[in-house]
Amino acid sequence: MTQAPREIWLVGIGTGSPSHITLEGVNALRAAALILVPRKGTGKDDLAEIRHRIIAECGSQARILHFDYPERDPALPYQERVERWHDEIAHRWQSTIAGAKIDGPVALLVWGDPSLYDSTLRIAARLRPEPRVRVVPGITAIQALTAAHKIPLNTVNGSVHVTTGRRLRTLGMPANETSVVVMLDGLCSFQELDPVELHIWWGAYLGSEKQILIEGPLDEVRKGIVQTRTEARARHGWIMDCYLLRRV
Amino acid sequence: MTQAPREIWLVGIGTGSPSHITLEGVNALRAAALILVPRKGTGKDDLAEIRHRIIAECGSQARILHFDYPERDPALPYQERVERWHDEIAHRWQSTIAGAKIDGPVALLVWGDPSLYDSTLRIAARLRPEPRVRVVPGITAIQALTAAHKIPLNTVNGSVHVTTGRRLRTLGMPANETSVVVMLDGLCSFQELDPVELHIWWGAYLGSEKQILIEGPLDEVRKGIVQTRTEARARHGWIMDCYLLRRV
Ligand SMILES: C[S@@+](CC[C@H](N)C(=O)[O-])C[C@H]1O[C@@H](n2cnc3c(N)ncnc32)[C@H](O)[C@@H]1O
Ligand SMILES: C[S@@+](CC[C@H](N)C(=O)[O-])C[C@H]1O[C@@H](n2cnc3c(N)ncnc32)[C@H](O)[C@@H]1O
Repeated sequence: MTQAPREIWLVGIGTGSPSHITLEGVNALRAAALILVPRKGTGKDDLAEIRHRIIAECGSQARILHFDYPERDPALPYQERVERWHDEIAHRWQSTIAGAKIDGPVALLVWGDPSLYDSTLRIAARLRPEPRVRVVPGITAIQALTAAHKIPLNTVNGSVHVTTGRRLRTLGMPANETSVVVMLDGLCSFQELDPVELHIWWGAYLGSEKQILIEGPLDEVRKGIVQTRTEARARHGWIMDCYLLRRV
Repeated sequence: MTQAPREIWLVGIGTGSPSHITLEGVNALRAAALILVPRKGTGKDDLAEIRHRIIAECGSQARILHFDYPERDPALPYQERVERWHDEIAHRWQSTIAGAKIDGPVALLVWGDPSLYDSTLRIAARLRPEPRVRVVPGITAIQALTAAHKIPLNTVNGSVHVTTGRRLRTLGMPANETSVVVMLDGLCSFQELDPVELHIWWGAYLGSEKQILIEGPLDEVRKGIVQTRTEARARHGWIMDCYLLRRV
């Protein structure tokens, strides 16, 4: 029987720049007894490297252990596939931690903010006995996008809608929404929208030296974004991008 | 004729904890030649104090100058009132900066993130000649809320709607939205909603030692929130709160 740790700290690290981390995040990584680092993240080697750089730069003396992400089972229906995958990750965390025979807090470096399109909270909740969870907030890709473009997220007193590429394709541009942020969009789903009266602010590798920004009326810039994205992805082997659409 | 600075840096400082600031923010405050601090912010003395604490703790040697927020003219219609107010703030920044006879970058500490329900970007755009603007992203009240409650912002692959108290009162709970964040709500507008199948996570003074959290089915906890808010506001002289509503 493997033992769960008493405390799991989910530390938001921002989205590409090692200096996105907060002082609270630095202090947490220093105070942790053990840090779990995925051997291969969604964004491949660059993302593992940035995690190690952050740990080193903040002077953490914590023990570092790696775990591998399991494969998702393509045979399962979507919801169940994700559930089983989370179970399996929780299992790997638990046995890695148990093997370390460490009593203090265990930290994980979470891309962006742990609350936004991220599963670490749901995985941590699967550990038994349930650990005390601490969440250290981090800069999200949304903040990195608006900071890079130097734009407000909302219009004056307006609302903001945050959605995924999948939802944008299925549901279209949400009616009555002026400002729509789209994340998790591997398919440039903005191509399928009626571009009339839409402005786009697009960003890839936000916060990092690779950062690319394109901005303009959707009908004028959408082709360029698709092309730039395809080339950048081929060059770096991976890409992370998101965008803000605004009705103008 | 007053001269505008060549560079204005808008530095997000998070929402209550001095350790919400990022390393990028710390570096910016250190590299700034001049820091402009409002004498009285929206949240009164506590908020001015936290700004000074952040500047001191990050070891900035920048010169600090204060400016006063002008009054808004209640006789004007809303839109125009806000426009004139921004004009007047820009004017005060410009003359404070000109008086300092300083050539380097001028920094402002922006509550939360500069992109979210904040006017500093719009004010900076009024300076003439237009300065180069730099935005340093910060932890938003939304992140502080979800971190404190240790909850995801979105449901799995779901969208997120961010709105204001005023909009919630006028438009009601947005149809088809599972997760709705409400900010700028001085009137506890959740009281006017049909509470059936709504869960609320509410937080005040997030990130600070005063932090208060209440969470539960809306019909069970809404009265308690109103009462807690009224008492806390009377005790501290000010309050900042926001909440997440989720259809369950
Ligand atoms: C699984 S979600 C995680 C989001 C993260 N927790 C956050 O707070 O930003 C990954 C998505 O975030 C966006 N994203 C994350 N990092 C990014 C970056 N550096 N540049 C552009 N988009 C990014 C992309 O839309 C990507 O598909
Ligand atoms: C003018 S807006 C500024 C938001 C800020 N730029 C951000 O990124 O969070 C102020 C609103 O943010 C929310 N807020 C800011 N700080 C907060 C805190 N410490 N606790 C709770 N709510 C907060 C409240 O809803 C408040 O009415």
